[in-house]
Amino acid sequence: MAQEKVNLSHKFALFTDHANPRIAGELNDSYVKLVKLKGEFVWHHHENEDELFLIVKGQLIMKLRDRDVVLNEGEFFIVPKGVEHKPVAPEEVHVVLLEPKSTLNTGNVRNEITRDHLQWI
Amino acid sequence: MAQEKVNLSHKFALFTDHANPRIAGELNDSYVKLVKLKGEFVWHHHENEDELFLIVKGQLIMKLRDRDVVLNEGEFFIVPKGVEHKPVAPEEVHVVLLEPKSTLNTGNVRNEITRDHLQWI
Repeated sequence: MAQEKVNLSHKFALFTDHANPRIAGELNDSYVKLVKLKGEFVWHHHENEDELFLIVKGQLIMKLRDRDVVLNEGEFFIVPKGVEHKPVAPEEVHVVLLEPKSTLNTGNVRNEITRDHLQWI
Repeated sequence: MAQEKVNLSHKFALFTDHANPRIAGELNDSYVKLVKLKGEFVWHHHENEDELFLIVKGQLIMKLRDRDVVLNEGEFFIVPKGVEHKPVAPEEVHVVLLEPKSTLNTGNVRNEITRDHLQWI
């Protein structure tokens, strides 16, 4: 059974909160997630999962321990497993995430922005 | 070791041929591929791999056996494993593919447009 197509801007228009990823698709044991970020996330890493960030709107600064990677609309970046990173969004940014279903948003860290149960959108 | 960021429009400007995917990233045993399509592809399916098509520029008609899915810029569609599909592009379309490294572009079919060895871009 084929899934329906996903229009990114339509989906992003359906929610306004930050750091709360929605699931927009699944393939090969991974989820495609949509998230709006604003402000500073936490330093964390994922023990077993590589994570792709694709910028749909706005700008995301991906802080790594040795450099900052500035990501603008139409750019993607893959954070390999084990690599510490801290996403920072000076203004709101719309991001498509691709990562294994097992991925927790805050990785090895657990705090008040950890999201255990994600909803489909 | 983190990879470099990828600017999609810069990468798409680097090649002009059709139905010849380039690898732009890897994560979790999958590749992110960039491909330009124009015209009719072949009917095929992938026995073991789900395949994501994200439209960066132009329009792609994903023919399924029971319907056509019209995909425009900013839309993605996931073709589950086992589902026959035939991408058709009336005009040139720029597509980001996400699929396991094991995926052959023509799936269960082998012909003159089968690409066995993909290059990084």
